[in-house]
Amino acid sequence: MNESVVVGELTWPEYAQKVASGSTIFLPVGALEQHGHHMCMEVDVLLPTALCKAVAREVDGLVLPALAYGYKSQQKSGGGNHFPGTTSLDGATLTHTIQDIIRELARHGARKLVLMNGHYENSMFIVEGIDLALRELRYGGITDFKVVVLSYWDFVNAPAVIEELYPEGFLGWDIEHGGVFETSLMLALHPEKVDLSRAVDHPPAKFPPYDVFPIIPERTPACGTLSSPKGANREKGELILRVCVEGISSAVREAFDLQK
Amino acid sequence: MNESVVVGELTWPEYAQKVASGSTIFLPVGALEQHGHHMCMEVDVLLPTALCKAVAREVDGLVLPALAYGYKSQQKSGGGNHFPGTTSLDGATLTHTIQDIIRELARHGARKLVLMNGHYENSMFIVEGIDLALRELRYGGITDFKVVVLSYWDFVNAPAVIEELYPEGFLGWDIEHGGVFETSLMLALHPEKVDLSRAVDHPPAKFPPYDVFPIIPERTPACGTLSSPKGANREKGELILRVCVEGISSAVREAFDLQK
Amino acid sequence: MNESVVVGELTWPEYAQKVASGSTIFLPVGALEQHGHHMCMEVDVLLPTALCKAVAREVDGLVLPALAYGYKSQQKSGGGNHFPGTTSLDGATLTHTIQDIIRELARHGARKLVLMNGHYENSMFIVEGIDLALRELRYGGITDFKVVVLSYWDFVNAPAVIEELYPEGFLGWDIEHGGVFETSLMLALHPEKVDLSRAVDHPPAKFPPYDVFPIIPERTPACGTLSSPKGANREKGELILRVCVEGISSAVREAFDLQK
Amino acid sequence: MNESVVVGELTWPEYAQKVASGSTIFLPVGALEQHGHHMCMEVDVLLPTALCKAVAREVDGLVLPALAYGYKSQQKSGGGNHFPGTTSLDGATLTHTIQDIIRELARHGARKLVLMNGHYENSMFIVEGIDLALRELRYGGITDFKVVVLSYWDFVNAPAVIEELYPEGFLGWDIEHGGVFETSLMLALHPEKVDLSRAVDHPPAKFPPYDVFPIIPERTPACGTLSSPKGANREKGELILRVCVEGISSAVREAFDLQK
Amino acid sequence: MNESVVVGELTWPEYAQKVASGSTIFLPVGALEQHGHHMCMEVDVLLPTALCKAVAREVDGLVLPALAYGYKSQQKSGGGNHFPGTTSLDGATLTHTIQDIIRELARHGARKLVLMNGHYENSMFIVEGIDLALRELRYGGITDFKVVVLSYWDFVNAPAVIEELYPEGFLGWDIEHGGVFETSLMLALHPEKVDLSRAVDHPPAKFPPYDVFPIIPERTPACGTLSSPKGANREKGELILRVCVEGISSAVREAFDLQK
Amino acid sequence: MNESVVVGELTWPEYAQKVASGSTIFLPVGALEQHGHHMCMEVDVLLPTALCKAVAREVDGLVLPALAYGYKSQQKSGGGNHFPGTTSLDGATLTHTIQDIIRELARHGARKLVLMNGHYENSMFIVEGIDLALRELRYGGITDFKVVVLSYWDFVNAPAVIEELYPEGFLGWDIEHGGVFETSLMLALHPEKVDLSRAVDHPPAKFPPYDVFPIIPERTPACGTLSSPKGANREKGELILRVCVEGISSAVREAFDLQK
Repeated sequence: MNESVVVGELTWPEYAQKVASGSTIFLPVGALEQHGHHMCMEVDVLLPTALCKAVAREVDGLVLPALAYGYKSQQKSGGGNHFPGTTSLDGATLTHTIQDIIRELARHGARKLVLMNGHYENSMFIVEGIDLALRELRYGGITDFKVVVLSYWDFVNAPAVIEELYPEGFLGWDIEHGGVFETSLMLALHPEKVDLSRAVDHPPAKFPPYDVFPIIPERTPACGTLSSPKGANREKGELILRVCVEGISSAVREAFDLQK
Repeated sequence: MNESVVVGELTWPEYAQKVASGSTIFLPVGALEQHGHHMCMEVDVLLPTALCKAVAREVDGLVLPALAYGYKSQQKSGGGNHFPGTTSLDGATLTHTIQDIIRELARHGARKLVLMNGHYENSMFIVEGIDLALRELRYGGITDFKVVVLSYWDFVNAPAVIEELYPEGFLGWDIEHGGVFETSLMLALHPEKVDLSRAVDHPPAKFPPYDVFPIIPERTPACGTLSSPKGANREKGELILRVCVEGISSAVREAFDLQK
Repeated sequence: MNESVVVGELTWPEYAQKVASGSTIFLPVGALEQHGHHMCMEVDVLLPTALCKAVAREVDGLVLPALAYGYKSQQKSGGGNHFPGTTSLDGATLTHTIQDIIRELARHGARKLVLMNGHYENSMFIVEGIDLALRELRYGGITDFKVVVLSYWDFVNAPAVIEELYPEGFLGWDIEHGGVFETSLMLALHPEKVDLSRAVDHPPAKFPPYDVFPIIPERTPACGTLSSPKGANREKGELILRVCVEGISSAVREAFDLQK
Repeated sequence: MNESVVVGELTWPEYAQKVASGSTIFLPVGALEQHGHHMCMEVDVLLPTALCKAVAREVDGLVLPALAYGYKSQQKSGGGNHFPGTTSLDGATLTHTIQDIIRELARHGARKLVLMNGHYENSMFIVEGIDLALRELRYGGITDFKVVVLSYWDFVNAPAVIEELYPEGFLGWDIEHGGVFETSLMLALHPEKVDLSRAVDHPPAKFPPYDVFPIIPERTPACGTLSSPKGANREKGELILRVCVEGISSAVREAFDLQK
Repeated sequence: MNESVVVGELTWPEYAQKVASGSTIFLPVGALEQHGHHMCMEVDVLLPTALCKAVAREVDGLVLPALAYGYKSQQKSGGGNHFPGTTSLDGATLTHTIQDIIRELARHGARKLVLMNGHYENSMFIVEGIDLALRELRYGGITDFKVVVLSYWDFVNAPAVIEELYPEGFLGWDIEHGGVFETSLMLALHPEKVDLSRAVDHPPAKFPPYDVFPIIPERTPACGTLSSPKGANREKGELILRVCVEGISSAVREAFDLQK
Repeated sequence: MNESVVVGELTWPEYAQKVASGSTIFLPVGALEQHGHHMCMEVDVLLPTALCKAVAREVDGLVLPALAYGYKSQQKSGGGNHFPGTTSLDGATLTHTIQDIIRELARHGARKLVLMNGHYENSMFIVEGIDLALRELRYGGITDFKVVVLSYWDFVNAPAVIEELYPEGFLGWDIEHGGVFETSLMLALHPEKVDLSRAVDHPPAKFPPYDVFPIIPERTPACGTLSSPKGANREKGELILRVCVEGISSAVREAFDLQK
């Protein structure tokens, strides 16, 4: 028996058997987005994928191929969609991708899905995709398909952990784009895809309480990160991993009422 | 000369003259959504409309008819879309409404637009509408149309103000749905549409760091608000109004480089 | 108990109770459109809204927030979509707005809806929205949702009334845009939003029996109205009101088999 | 040289030459719709196609393949969309078909298009298709594409003609569905597709001044026509043809400033 | 009783009776596309329409009006979409047309549909239209609607027939655009719409194993055909007809388990 | 300097520099689809991705993240979309994904794109995405964006190679789903994801020259492959790889007029 939790690595009978046994399916939803001078552009795919795999191992789940393109980067949370490399979808494209996948999973017989978001801007278009899909499933007579949607960073909320990650004070998830949090995770998971020596140290980005379109590129630090990654290290990444895997596993068990 | 800032109350020659003189246009984007037992369901329209009018008077602007229906209420920010009365649009409908209106304003010759959001869940679909519209305007050769988008509560951020509004501690905008903030504003602006005697006092809503669909209605306080409005009063509402009108007027002047 | 027929002014429990008791819901569908030099641009919203409220009071109904933007003004019925101020939606946007609202009303438990159109050009896009919505409701197992759609002017058809309104002869609803009919109604309902002294007197617009796109603006009278409002007065408006409220109330009772 | 005015019967070099010389293109827009017991279901395609050909011969134009499916039949103008045989498109499908064809014609170099409608319900979705297409052409830098849109019956308006067609009084185009007008035209053009012996004589359909959805089939005469075709004859059809060909030819020459 | 197999030539009661008796419905799906210097542009409509009629007569079926516009001509199968005259739809427009027609047929009570494709490029958009329609029918509780889709040339596969048509060797269906196959069929069915004297003799088109967009027009033979029609004749056309009618009739009987 | 050809592994300045220097971008377009009992379900992603990387190294190109979900599996080319595990998108979703990515690449300054298809059913929806994107780019004034689209198997066409791969005769690409071709490639590239011992030997699938919907699952071999993979081996895979990399590299150089 194939022990992989990766759907793409299974044969269809292996997958069919897992789904028939009630396995939870995980879908990482990422983006192709600039993450500064020191990190590759697939960060938002790699991180939720790694977490999906780790949690899937805990709860006997399966991980679908990640969505590698996400919604348009916004200035205050991702630097903005004007950088070369950042390659984004229209909202409707992302929404319908989610809807199509849920429709197919339901056809397979799956009833438990976790959408693990790795790119802040995706959130509402994921929600809309879920809503359209569940509505459609109801028309088809399926009312027991259940979706958990989460952004993994929301599980890092214990004051002690925040304190350990940000001994000089936490400035908010918004400006964590390419900063200590994501960089530390990458150092723990894919150190070869980070080059801290090229990290640009800069004060946290500051934005007015409104947005302007077309955006004013100068408001984003030139390197693309919104806060400096200088405080990042592997240990912090491993701490975040532990906290996320534990928290998300527990949440998934709770949400789907799983034994394991 | 008609002194109204309300576009709907002007004749077209009056509007045309204002637009030709460079007036900023304001569009309140609201929702029809339950706001507990003590408040009417048009709160998310009334509040941004009132603020648009007040700011328009400051900056010689004009206020378009509000969008009275918004995106689906989410459990953690609006209680959820399962309440009777809450009447929401699909994301694409809201997005295309925004896109259509911007296309028309550009045809009129307007080049400055403020989208004032009064319903948290609208944010990303407004952003998408702006992006699609500005993209389309570029195809039509128009590159100088500028949009400011804001949620008015983001202008209430001075610690002294927060302290005055929430002497017992601020718990975050998320759970302010139908709570002290919105209720105080309504008391200042439309006291006849609030009946504090029917307000339900309850502890702040607590949610896990993930969402489940279909939602679990029991996670929302039965009355529909996410925090108790009991601390609301007219004075707080007037303070918020002052802070918002001043802050937003100043932001609009800055963003559009206005003299007045 | 809140006596308002305006949905936006109710709390959700008040609304829920009304809907549970079988109340008919009214949705005014308007437009933001030029109406000449003597009238404001929100005429097509104000008139059906006023009629909805009046009829709702007769039949114990409820009035939803009006749709303030409608389909593109056509030259022969609204002067054309080239005027500044006229702010219109694509057909699909209007259609999906109608569809979304019907889907939500059905979720609330409502089963009786009156769509009161105030802007000629909306008609077919409303019809399509209804058709798409009822089709979708059928997929969801709901087959008893019933919609009445009407344009209020179609209830003014008794020869004696026409004779009283147009002693010099009636020229057809088409060119009534901004003319005697709408202006009289506005004088009866919102006299402060009409300035007859600025009304431009002109012969009725004449059009060839075909349409040209792009339109030829010169074919529309420069002021924007299609017939002169000079014969308008408050008394005619009150007559129209009486006729419409009576006729529509009676039609609604008949269509939904209401006691009251 | 091929003398046909039918685009489908030309080779592409023949078509290309015609278009290069400035020929006007005609597109008949029809429907597949019941027309009572005495007539075939392709009436709304055959009639505008015949008129397009006749007019094209007059003005050196070309006729595209007709659109054989139209928008949903409405009860008051076509009996309703519940009859077997009536086969209709969603509004968006018709609109996009029109838009696509205009985009292609513009690519060919054509700049003059006549959309000849043969099915009342199509009108607004044709208008929307034109609007979307011309908007898009503008983005592509094409601003001289001109469209005439017409319903051929609108050219039958001279009182003497109406009197000759309806000696007992004209009841309006609305209920002419399958009645004297269309039947007479069919008798003049395609007599083998009419069987007057099967025509059902009935009083003109009467409808209340509102529509109900789902429609109440009983409100339509059981045979499907809205007025009796008994008064139809070939002579009336020939008169209509003469009037329409003459009137439309003249309108097309006027609209496009044609010599011929 | 009307003996026509053409739906458009029937009255609705005739159609209703046929459908009630279980008749198979045929829909020819064509295109308006250049077919070289020697043939008209409606070839892809005429051929599947003729075959539909012939097969319908064999199996007591009915033929709907053909779809006269198809998906964009591709260089390797139709010469490319850059020729004047070729008038194509976006994929979604074709797909939704198919979907709408199937939805309507199901409403009529029909349950057997044959989609006869006459234009290679349509294939996948037809498939998608079927899939969307059947999905939607399932939501409406209809699970017994069955569709056969075919391209008629796929029935010409017996080596002896291929040998007779192409004594010098068969080069593949791809480059048969406007070549021996289609021209022979046209000579058998519509000889007046072919002028072999204008046929351009040229070596078969050769293309690299990839496509380039925007296409390089020079890669298509200047006349528009992809292989020479010089070997075409009426006898070959009649052979193809016999083979196709026999093969398709038999397939339809098999697929729908028909007696006749 | 990062030597990776994988866009996701680059920082944005590295990517920006490559694009500025004129690098060709490659996008693998795959599917999540059953491939029998002996192979994993990500075959259609792994193969074009490997080929993109190999060719990109030859021509100094860059490889975007693959599209991991494709159009619905068809019975005659992929077994059908009814297998558990096969997870497919609606056509419009795939088309818009392609369109969005091209729009973004154009914004980055890229002008050369290769779409490498690994799943037969994707082809036409890719083509439509390209057409919509290039049309839109033209509206934005960009006319020099060039796309090559190919299915890698089309480069395996030399008779000697076919003879070596299929000594007992080649039966057509159609039924190569999960057969010798794909299995050999997987053995050369990802042998750990193939288990030949589980391969089911069966005669080649045979289908009638038409398709039926809903499909008849029994027509597909129960294991899901359309021809037996028994003749597959690593050497054949390496031969295919050599042939494809050489052929595609050469095609890309030719198409984009590259030096290298």
